[in-house]
This record gives sequence, structure tokens and C-alpha cells, in this order.
Amino acid sequence: MKRVFNFSAGPAVLPEEVLRQAADEMLSYKDSGMSVMEMSHRSKDFEQIINDAEADLRTLLEIPDNYKVLFLQGGATLQFSMVPLNLFKNKVVDFIHTGAWTEKAIAEASRYGEARIIASSEDQAFTYIPDLNNLKFSEDSDYVHMVQNNTIYGTRFTSIPDTKGKVLVSDMSSNILSEPIDVSKFGLIFAGAQKNIGPAGTTIVIIREDLITKDYLEHTPLMLQYKLHTDKGSMYNTPPTYGIYICGLVFKHLLHTGGVIAMYQKNLKKANLLYDALDASQMFHGTVRKVDRSLMNVTFKTDSEELDKLFIAGAKTRGFVNLKGHRSVGGMRASIYNAMPYEGVLALVEYMKEFEAEHQS
Amino acid sequence: MKRVFNFSAGPAVLPEEVLRQAADEMLSYKDSGMSVMEMSHRSKDFEQIINDAEADLRTLLEIPDNYKVLFLQGGATLQFSMVPLNLFKNKVVDFIHTGAWTEKAIAEASRYGEARIIASSEDQAFTYIPDLNNLKFSEDSDYVHMVQNNTIYGTRFTSIPDTKGKVLVSDMSSNILSEPIDVSKFGLIFAGAQKNIGPAGTTIVIIREDLITKDYLEHTPLMLQYKLHTDKGSMYNTPPTYGIYICGLVFKHLLHTGGVIAMYQKNLKKANLLYDALDASQMFHGTVRKVDRSLMNVTFKTDSEELDKLFIAGAKTRGFVNLKGHRSVGGMRASIYNAMPYEGVLALVEYMKEFEAEHQS
Repeated sequence: MKRVFNFSAGPAVLPEEVLRQAADEMLSYKDSGMSVMEMSHRSKDFEQIINDAEADLRTLLEIPDNYKVLFLQGGATLQFSMVPLNLFKNKVVDFIHTGAWTEKAIAEASRYGEARIIASSEDQAFTYIPDLNNLKFSEDSDYVHMVQNNTIYGTRFTSIPDTKGKVLVSDMSSNILSEPIDVSKFGLIFAGAQKNIGPAGTTIVIIREDLITKDYLEHTPLMLQYKLHTDKGSMYNTPPTYGIYICGLVFKHLLHTGGVIAMYQKNLKKANLLYDALDASQMFHGTVRKVDRSLMNVTFKTDSEELDKLFIAGAKTRGFVNLKGHRSVGGMRASIYNAMPYEGVLALVEYMKEFEAEHQS
Repeated sequence: MKRVFNFSAGPAVLPEEVLRQAADEMLSYKDSGMSVMEMSHRSKDFEQIINDAEADLRTLLEIPDNYKVLFLQGGATLQFSMVPLNLFKNKVVDFIHTGAWTEKAIAEASRYGEARIIASSEDQAFTYIPDLNNLKFSEDSDYVHMVQNNTIYGTRFTSIPDTKGKVLVSDMSSNILSEPIDVSKFGLIFAGAQKNIGPAGTTIVIIREDLITKDYLEHTPLMLQYKLHTDKGSMYNTPPTYGIYICGLVFKHLLHTGGVIAMYQKNLKKANLLYDALDASQMFHGTVRKVDRSLMNVTFKTDSEELDKLFIAGAKTRGFVNLKGHRSVGGMRASIYNAMPYEGVLALVEYMKEFEAEHQS
């Protein structure tokens, strides 16, 4: 069966080599005589899998020693609860509001305290990242929350705000491992795995040790306490073992292909190819401010909903799938995560040119 | 690579046919050109997968129409929080205390209200199920909590207590789909998938509609509200898509091999074979009261820790793995879930006889 070019925003394309290895090992992982799915999470084999996954992620992101790495469940959405439940002391958080995912996090944080929006791009439908140089942080806020890459709107933080020592929390679900980051600038990073890492159902949390305390809000459910999970090395109860295994394979694949720096170069090349095509086009245009363009989610439109539909339908017949934009934005969205090959973007750009030539006349 | 007989208590053995199909479809599910792992949870293909999984589970367990089925994350442990957070009104629960898993549920429920132990087998190290005919339910309790099969101790409820209309909640993590159950006797059933269903990281919840309300405790995190998940058909956020796919394959496999009744007959045959061997042995003996023996987790010992160790080591060299008992019980535990073939139990019994002959003299 021929594989398609899958531009899905998530769950998303994974490296074919990883899928091949997973298929090969499905009936017996190494010489274990069983699938990773069938393996006790307390077994030596699985211990090695989760330890390797953590070590490889630490290498890839150069995670400092005073940070813990967790493999949890529940997606970024559960983090919208866990972060305030664990980090609230004054029960105030400052938000840089850049779209649907901050909106949901704001709503949830507001249930336990006060969420203050200190900057927002809502006035222009979240098509840009607010100015980060003149942010006014609240004196009494416990932390600042940002979403580094906005999957729906196609925007991206190209720099990290200087929070003057205040704890910075970043949702990196759609950009983790796509570009180098300085982990030491953040107090807590979280990411659902299903875009750049692995299967849905695994969530990565990277948390600075001083933020891990028993001083969570009183009614914080057991499984929502970071301290429980760090104390038990993500194994208080059975973790999503197979998902962690796939994440580990992706980490190894990334290490073997040059790490995050090499991946960033590839991602720049892919994104530039597509954005250059958009900028050269008379028919297609990007939907966000140029300086804030995402490297992962490229949002674009024609001036006609009819043409958009036609373009998406034609794409599908060529094996380019999931190009429809999010309903709140419309148009098209090409998600070009780490595992999207250059060839996929090239083929898309060629199709765009053909489509424009055909429908312009 | 030869597959072993895997007696792990969970994650546990899965049907080989299911693993083969998963391997075959790893690079392309049907004609989609992508792995299920890479598939948008909003895609038609995945919609079909989750809808089929639910429909097949409904068929298998004859789930009445006034029950909702959910595919969640977080394992049974997260249910220890979700159940009281959603069901507490008077904030009182009656527990039938039968081991480690009720203990954890009691501890968590106690954080939000009062957990009353109305029956317990703790006096004899949880080696039996308390008398269910003379239970005194609290007038003001919101529900009764039981664990139908106790993975660690190897006991099993052979009947369901008559709660006189009070809501009965059952943790069926280690017995679901192994025997027929009358769902209508329960208000809520939950089960981590990793024993009889699929990979760790998926949790099944079956909940009666009248228990799904907005009347959860005030600070219940969003993702812990049953109503959110039932309103959104388990898709408020990205569900553990690949896990749900594997669960679905297991359900189809079970349907094709005769359903729960046929599986129950096979399980009885396997368990009887092993228990008969234990009862006939001068060396090995079961650790729980005969009438309360689990069909899934068979716990047994010799009278010598040295012999136990020798037995487990010898088993491993023959390809029978994960036979060591839980540290709180010692000895051996053979978990013989649905997917453990009769041949595996037969081989184990033959080894037991040989071992006894060799070491008795």
C-alpha cells in the first residue's frame, strides 16, 4: 500500500522507519518473545525502554539536571488543570493569549483562581504574536502561561519573553523537538505527543525541581499531582507503555539523523519552500503576520471558498490528505511536522502551482 | 522469534492474531495510506474505529441502551478520583474491602468525603471474599464500591451483592470480558485495558445515564468530569487513538471466537486445569479460599521460598515468564487472562508435575 503525504495537525505523520521497526517488533520485542504492549511495566525490558526514552529526550533538548521528565496521560488538556492545581499559591496566572489553546487553559485556570490576560492577539483573530518586549507581569502572579506554536492559527513565538525570574510555563505540543529551545528559560514545559513525538495518549512534562512540591491545592486528585509522578518515575500506576516505546523510537530516530539542530534546518527548509510559494502566488496567501509564521502549521487561503474546496479535493486525489483548515480559520492548513518529508512539501508546492495555472486563467 | 507464554498480571498477553493484524496495518490502515497512530481523531476512518469498538463492546457485554461507554485515559487509578468527584452528593461511600486496589480507592475517596468499610477480608490477608448476604449499607452512602477480581490476591466475586437499589460501582480491570456480567446491576463499571482488553493507557468506563450530571464536586478538573466525555463521545480532546484501535481489534477477535460466553467456558477450563493440579499436588497449594478463587489470577506457593524461586527460574528457561507472585503475597501468580491459550496452562501444569517429581524425592 502506497503511503500518502499526511498533513494532519495531529495525530500526525510519524517517521516511516519508526513504524517499520514497530511492525517488525510487534510479536516479539528483541528476544523477549512478546510485544511491548504485553510487557509488564515493571519488567527489565520496559524499564530500559522508559529510561532510554528519558535519556534520549534529555540529550535532544539538553535538559538541565535540575529538571524532571515525566511521561503522563491526558494530553495537554489535563495539563490545563494540573499546572494551576500544582503551581497556584497566590492563585494568579498571567496569560499571553494567542488562540484556542490559551483560551481553554484560561477557562480551566479561572476555576481555581484568577487568569489575567496580559497580552492578546484576539483583536486580529490571533493572526500574530503580541509584542513580547513590553509585557506587564502581575506582581502577585504565580507563573506566566504561553503556547509556543499555535496549531490552529499557524503562529509561532520566535523569541521567549523575559519574565524577569517569574516562572514561565509553555505548551509546546506542536513545536517540541522541531527547533532548539533553552529549557532553562522555562519552569514547566508540556506537550501532547501526537504531533512531533508519538501516538496520542502520552504527554511529556519537563518540570524544574523547585516547582515539584506537596503544596498543591487541597483537592488536587492524586493522579494530577506532579510530585507523585516524579517520586515514582512516571510509574505510580501503569503508564501508556506502548506510546512511550514509540516516543522512544522517535527520539532515537531523531538522534540518528542529527538531533534537533539538524531537524530545525530541515524544518526551516520545508517551511521556507512553502511560504516562498505562498508569497510568490497570486492566488494563495498566508493568513498570519509574516514574522510570526509557524514552522509546523502553515495556514493559507485563496480568496474564494469554492477554490479552497476544489484545491483540497484535488489534493486528496493526489495523495495529499488532511489539508483542510481548522473550522475557526477556514482555508487550508498544511501541518509539516518533523516527520513530514521535504518531498511532501515539494509535491504540495508543485500541485499549488499547477492548480493556480489551471484556475487563474 | 518464538513467543513465550506470558503470565504477566498486566500489561498482559494479547491475542496473537490481533498483534499480527496490527503489524500488517502499521504502515497503512486499510487503504488510508497511514498508520492508525498517524490518523486524525476527527477522520472518518478513526470515527469508524471508535464507533465499531463501542458497538462491539456493547454487543459483547449486552450493555443496555441507558448506559454510556467511554474510552478514557489515566487507568483505574484516575477512576479512584473520578468516581467520588462525580458521584458524591452526601459524600459517603461504602466499600467492600478486598485488597490493595480497594485500599487505594478508599484513600482517594477519603480525601473528598467519607469512605466506610462495610465488609473486609483484611483479617485473613485478603485471601477470601467477605459474605455478601449480610452487608449493611449506610443509609446516606452515595454508592457502593467493589473490585470484582483481585489481581494481587487472586480472589473473585462469584456473585454480585444486592445493594437494594443503591448504586454499585465495580472495578473490573482484571475480569472484564472474561465472564458474563449483568451490566444492569451496576451503576458504573471501569476497567484499565491492559489486562483483558488492550494496551495500557486506555480505560473503559460504562456508566448509567442518570449518574451523568453536572452535579460533580466543585473543583473537579475538566478532564475528570464524566459529563464532558459523554457529551463529546470520548473525544473532547485527542483520545488514545491507537490504544482504542487495538481494543477494537480484541473486541472483534472475541466476537469471532464466540463472544464472552465461549471465552468464559475457555477460562473455566484453563482455571480448572490449574486449580485441579494445585489440589492434586503435595508440593504446591493455592493461597485463597477455594470458593473465591479467581479465574484470571491463580496464586500459589510451595512451603519453601527456595523452592518457589527455583520453580520460577526453571519456568523462565522453558519460556513461561512473569510467574513471580506480587511482593505482598509472595510465591507464584499465573495470570491466565483471555488471551492466554489453553496450551500455555497445560504446559505450566506439566512443568509443575515434573518439578514436583524432581524435587519431592
